[in-house]
Amino acid sequence: MARAYNFSAGPAILPVEVLEEAQKDLVDYQGSGMSIMEMSHRGKEYSAVHDEAIANMRELLGISDDYAVLFLTGGASGQFAWIPMNLLGEGQVADYTATGSWASKAIKEAKILGKVNIAADSSKESPARMPLADECTWTDGAAYAHITTNETIGGIQWKAFPDAGSPLVADMSSDILSRPFDVSKFGLIYAGAQKNIGPAGVTVVLIKDDFLQKRNEGVATMLDYKTHADKLYNTPPVFAVYMVEKVLRWLEGRGGIDGIQKINERKAKMLYDRIDKTDFYRGAAVPDSRSVMNVCFRLPSEELEGQFVKAAAAAGLQALKGHRSVGGIRASIYNACPTAAVEALTSFMDEFEQKNG
Amino acid sequence: MARAYNFSAGPAILPVEVLEEAQKDLVDYQGSGMSIMEMSHRGKEYSAVHDEAIANMRELLGISDDYAVLFLTGGASGQFAWIPMNLLGEGQVADYTATGSWASKAIKEAKILGKVNIAADSSKESPARMPLADECTWTDGAAYAHITTNETIGGIQWKAFPDAGSPLVADMSSDILSRPFDVSKFGLIYAGAQKNIGPAGVTVVLIKDDFLQKRNEGVATMLDYKTHADKLYNTPPVFAVYMVEKVLRWLEGRGGIDGIQKINERKAKMLYDRIDKTDFYRGAAVPDSRSVMNVCFRLPSEELEGQFVKAAAAAGLQALKGHRSVGGIRASIYNACPTAAVEALTSFMDEFEQKNG
Repeated sequence: MARAYNFSAGPAILPVEVLEEAQKDLVDYQGSGMSIMEMSHRGKEYSAVHDEAIANMRELLGISDDYAVLFLTGGASGQFAWIPMNLLGEGQVADYTATGSWASKAIKEAKILGKVNIAADSSKESPARMPLADECTWTDGAAYAHITTNETIGGIQWKAFPDAGSPLVADMSSDILSRPFDVSKFGLIYAGAQKNIGPAGVTVVLIKDDFLQKRNEGVATMLDYKTHADKLYNTPPVFAVYMVEKVLRWLEGRGGIDGIQKINERKAKMLYDRIDKTDFYRGAAVPDSRSVMNVCFRLPSEELEGQFVKAAAAAGLQALKGHRSVGGIRASIYNACPTAAVEALTSFMDEFEQKNG
Repeated sequence: MARAYNFSAGPAILPVEVLEEAQKDLVDYQGSGMSIMEMSHRGKEYSAVHDEAIANMRELLGISDDYAVLFLTGGASGQFAWIPMNLLGEGQVADYTATGSWASKAIKEAKILGKVNIAADSSKESPARMPLADECTWTDGAAYAHITTNETIGGIQWKAFPDAGSPLVADMSSDILSRPFDVSKFGLIYAGAQKNIGPAGVTVVLIKDDFLQKRNEGVATMLDYKTHADKLYNTPPVFAVYMVEKVLRWLEGRGGIDGIQKINERKAKMLYDRIDKTDFYRGAAVPDSRSVMNVCFRLPSEELEGQFVKAAAAAGLQALKGHRSVGGIRASIYNACPTAAVEALTSFMDEFEQKNG
């Protein structure tokens, strides 16, 4: 079969080697006569997978023992609520940076549950950009400061993380595991799996012990981080975690975070260079904020954009349509997107410009 | 490969035909060059799967249009919190029946969030049983009345559902889709998938429109049933829902709920008849409450029980150990458990008794 060049923003491309491995074992896991999906989550087979996934995550990101690594569900959208519910106390303020659609959703939830200060707002700007460090107004003694490290719709990314003075909380759904960073600067990191970690259906949360200790009383058991930090409380999304374990192992084989960053930077540079080469294509984000994961650009007209998406799909380049809220073209080039896909896309961009420029 | 006889309480056995179908398409979904896990949840391929899973659920259970059918995450454990959070108002009381471990967890959550009346309590009794209708003390004007239709640990099941006078809310995690019942008697039904519906990682909720209208203000967006009843709000657990669609289609091929009930009753009768045939085995539940899904029994000593579990596993009969909180033997014989597995188990019980009786 021909493997598609898949630029989906998420759920997104997975390493084909991982899919093939999962396929092989799907009906009969390691000669057990059962699928991994049919086994108790307390049994030795699944426990080994779960523990290994956590160990790999710790290894890849250099996570110290004073952080819990949790595999939850509900996505980043769920975490938008869990965070203020657990960590924004009565009479406290949480700082949020408004940088696009995802940050806005996090802010909306925090406002339902507590008091919010908008430390910076670049969300209405075009071209899209992340705030500069000196534009942020942090609250003294805030419960925490929230950032969205990468906005998939605007195609922008924090290049350096701000120092807010309070525990930093980050939605890293769309760029975790793509570049090195210092976990110890964060109180809590969360990410839906379906970009760089694995399939949809599992949410990774890293939470620091001393931040966890500050959580509110009276939170429902299942929504209390401590429940999950203490033990495997309820049935996890077994198959999704099983896939995560494989993706993380694949990533180790690519040289870990340092190795994948080099590949990611090269892929992104190829695309941005092609965009910048002529005036036909126009980057949607301010150069300093350009995302290495989601490359967003425009063509001279919406009509041409429609033609571009259609002709690209016919040429095997799938899911390039920008988000409906902003239009344009979006190429999501997460860790598992092969360099060959980006090469095919830049070639296609050349051809399309020649015909329509 | 030899397929194991799998009696796991959950995650549990899936139909082998479903696993084989999923295996075939895992890397390349219908010639698309992608796995279903790599596709946008808003795209036409996944949308068709999601809609079909809902349609099949409606068809199988005869669910009318005034119920929403939701595929959420967080399991039944999550719903223990969602229900009082959404539906137990300030100053209201909710009735709960205490019938075992699962009901107790539901009660614990409701007490964190609101006021609870225990309408009946059979949870400490041995042998285990469900309450009789005339033992239940329902509250006039209760927000709702909660039951756990099947307790997997005690191996007991409500045979007829009580009429509490307030909207009935049911945890049907371990017996939904196993027998016909009238959905219209319920305000809300919820079930973790990993027994009769599919793999772990998706939670089914059926909620009636007029009950939904009564929900509390100020609930976080992701935890508000209305968010999900209105539209597909966030990324669903794509692969788990994909598997659910296949399991439901498989169930239609088995004659739907009426067809599977006959098979389930026959399987359960074979096992209970074997238990009752001699004094060597002893049913753990009162006969009138015996679960058709989880058949729990004891042997003359814990030592013999340990030997039984070990020898059964060596003979290919897996996961027969009772829950650690109660001990004994538990054979979970959900929809996907083939009759041949139950026949193999009863034969093994004969042999084991001959050797050790």
